[in-house]
Amino acid sequence: MASIVFFSVKKTAQTSRRCLSSHLKGLANSGDSGWSFCATHNPSASLFPGARWCSRGTGARFMSHGTAGRSAAGRTRRGALALSGAAAVTAAAAVAGFLANTDHFQRAEMATRVPRADENKRTAAAEEEEGDIAERCRGFMSPPVTDISVLQKRKEEMSTKMEMLIMETQADFCKALEEVDGGTFRVDRWDRKEGGGGISCVMQDGKVFEKAGVNVSVVFGNLTEEAAKQMRSRGKVLKGKDGKLPFCAMGVSSVIHPKNPHIPTVHFNYRYFEIEEEDGTKQWWFGGGTDLTPVYINKEDGLHFHKTLKEACDKHHPQYYPDFKKWCDRYFYIRHRGETRGIGGIFFDDLDSPNQKEAFDFVKSCARTVVPCYLPIVHKHLNDSFTAEEKNWQQIRRGRYVEFNLVYDRGVKFGLATPGSRIESILMSLPLTATWEYMHEPAKGSREADMMEALRNPKEWV
Amino acid sequence: MASIVFFSVKKTAQTSRRCLSSHLKGLANSGDSGWSFCATHNPSASLFPGARWCSRGTGARFMSHGTAGRSAAGRTRRGALALSGAAAVTAAAAVAGFLANTDHFQRAEMATRVPRADENKRTAAAEEEEGDIAERCRGFMSPPVTDISVLQKRKEEMSTKMEMLIMETQADFCKALEEVDGGTFRVDRWDRKEGGGGISCVMQDGKVFEKAGVNVSVVFGNLTEEAAKQMRSRGKVLKGKDGKLPFCAMGVSSVIHPKNPHIPTVHFNYRYFEIEEEDGTKQWWFGGGTDLTPVYINKEDGLHFHKTLKEACDKHHPQYYPDFKKWCDRYFYIRHRGETRGIGGIFFDDLDSPNQKEAFDFVKSCARTVVPCYLPIVHKHLNDSFTAEEKNWQQIRRGRYVEFNLVYDRGVKFGLATPGSRIESILMSLPLTATWEYMHEPAKGSREADMMEALRNPKEWV
Repeated sequence: MASIVFFSVKKTAQTSRRCLSSHLKGLANSGDSGWSFCATHNPSASLFPGARWCSRGTGARFMSHGTAGRSAAGRTRRGALALSGAAAVTAAAAVAGFLANTDHFQRAEMATRVPRADENKRTAAAEEEEGDIAERCRGFMSPPVTDISVLQKRKEEMSTKMEMLIMETQADFCKALEEVDGGTFRVDRWDRKEGGGGISCVMQDGKVFEKAGVNVSVVFGNLTEEAAKQMRSRGKVLKGKDGKLPFCAMGVSSVIHPKNPHIPTVHFNYRYFEIEEEDGTKQWWFGGGTDLTPVYINKEDGLHFHKTLKEACDKHHPQYYPDFKKWCDRYFYIRHRGETRGIGGIFFDDLDSPNQKEAFDFVKSCARTVVPCYLPIVHKHLNDSFTAEEKNWQQIRRGRYVEFNLVYDRGVKFGLATPGSRIESILMSLPLTATWEYMHEPAKGSREADMMEALRNPKEWV
Repeated sequence: MASIVFFSVKKTAQTSRRCLSSHLKGLANSGDSGWSFCATHNPSASLFPGARWCSRGTGARFMSHGTAGRSAAGRTRRGALALSGAAAVTAAAAVAGFLANTDHFQRAEMATRVPRADENKRTAAAEEEEGDIAERCRGFMSPPVTDISVLQKRKEEMSTKMEMLIMETQADFCKALEEVDGGTFRVDRWDRKEGGGGISCVMQDGKVFEKAGVNVSVVFGNLTEEAAKQMRSRGKVLKGKDGKLPFCAMGVSSVIHPKNPHIPTVHFNYRYFEIEEEDGTKQWWFGGGTDLTPVYINKEDGLHFHKTLKEACDKHHPQYYPDFKKWCDRYFYIRHRGETRGIGGIFFDDLDSPNQKEAFDFVKSCARTVVPCYLPIVHKHLNDSFTAEEKNWQQIRRGRYVEFNLVYDRGVKFGLATPGSRIESILMSLPLTATWEYMHEPAKGSREADMMEALRNPKEWV
């Protein structure tokens, strides 16, 4: 699902980073962000020269020597936040696009339901590092959708944990991208008339990124029983008070289109849904995924991307990666072309087991892999030269991306069909530029033909 | 409907014009095409300096002084065919995209049903000019889908008349475009495994046209009663032999995207559907339309385009233009943007009155207006200079075109959902290049804002 986002917009405000930081001044002291760098070498990342990895608790962390110069000051707010947004990953589990599920998703082949993680190596430190709500909000791209005082009051509720995770994932990812690009995200806050709102961060025509969008939305209100039935992914009948069911849905969603055809497009989306029945019982579930769309096949990149996802999944259940990898290949399929959108990753939905905490922990692990999955690949290819032909092939692949998003993506379809949706946030996933050439057919044995082969026959990367 | 086209392709052959002419050699003498120029001045076209019009029978004809130099030789095959393809318009009623109707088109507001044309000034000459089948085939872009010998045998049948009209419309339009561009259409013939096939003509990255596609398809076979019910636009129940209903469907469809932002995009589509019931009764209907998508509002262009269509409609019924103009504005509507795709034209479907001959005559008149509607506008703006900003605005409008075609166009949706469709012919309607800028908003009072105003509030042009 390429995007979240919906409903009426009461106001849209562009908040510059300068404005934001003064806006947030009241919440905590400005100045040193409190983040610190980590430079422990992790051999698993050795295929990316110049990038280093270390692991503290469950979060994979990295820093790139390639950009170390830029952030050498380290303790300046911008540099520290930007790289350590990737590095520290206090961030975010994340959630978004949930409403996509309502569009009659065929779930016949959904991933194996699993009882409980075999092994969970997460440490108490991972929980503790989250710290105070107001303190954590300092690092966000914008104040959260829900008032900080409200979040503080209901700190222990899953909706609060999720909103914080969404906001943190957005901030970490945006800052990592700003660091590598040198550009700045435009931040638009919008309110949903019926309840909730969102924060759309978009960087366009940057040095590295043609178009980068990272959306958060938190919406709530009442559903009819019929709508709830459609929304509840396995079609369970829910009983509401006077036929109405209070719901809350939130997510983070992102699509990044780089300029250089050797840097792949990435998409991720993590979401949470909660619905309250007549007797006060709460139904809830998570969904999400991260997938890569390269223009040219690069085995190292593919291996790194999938391996990073697999490691995050394996901490929670050995079936997660194989099941969610397959699901991803099935979901991101351009049927009329007989090809996948990219080389996949993971995709899951309807996750409500083994319990709320463990499902949340899994989603958090996934969200925390977004930066380590993608940024090393960006750094690796940052200075790759490319030809006009390679750029053209990228533009053709961009056209296929548009085809998938407008024809098949359930989040987009649902968003476009919902009156009052914030269209610009839904279609932020479209590339800045795309091409459609009639009867384009890569030459036999070319690297373009290799790419097509990988899209026609999804492979096992790990 | 941006495209026709469907089903399995047994083979696809690119036929160069040279190949085609040798292919056709057996049919008639090559050399002088037999077309002649017409230079009678028609004052109604006086707003287009350099373009002249004349009328012989029912067909509007034109020639452009702007390109006269190129075709001064006149009697060379290429020059004669190209300009006089526009000029002579022996062509084509036309039909295509018919299957679009199956996608649950809401017909609640369809155009007024009309009994009989008030006035029909058509002369016998119009019928006579069509001449011998084999002779007429000489001017086509490719031999027709149906064998010429078969067409000759069933010369009086509507399916033959329609196939000839489709082929002629394609040829006339392609040649008019080649003349103005200087480029050549690539011609792909394809067969449909289940019966019939098509001819796709595409010119890409020409001097004037970024991408120009003109498709013909003629398909036949058997429908189930259920499919026939969906296809039959007013949902009439049809009784077949053993539940099967022989059908024949054909059409011509075109989308032209020019390079210069001052030359608008045009789309047209004319189609015919025939279905045979158990007792041998034939159900039939026509559909079609022509609509204009400018990048900037030009009142003269809009007036000329709509006036030309209105004149063609008025010859058949005074309600046709007002009804089909409204229908067009409703159909080509990008709901999620709250704007029409362009400034409209006409759109109709399900036309089976007052009788087959008169409905066909109306469709023929419409198809014959394609060249006179559009080519004068092309010639008028051929040498307009433009800025990078204007080009960028064109690319943004191209993005909206893609949105309409992939999200709403029923022909495209049906085609993409039909296994074995010829995807390249369906998506030929997409522009070569398009842009999506986040939150693009034209400045108040700008010409871009004027365009948006016209798209948000469709106006009466005539």
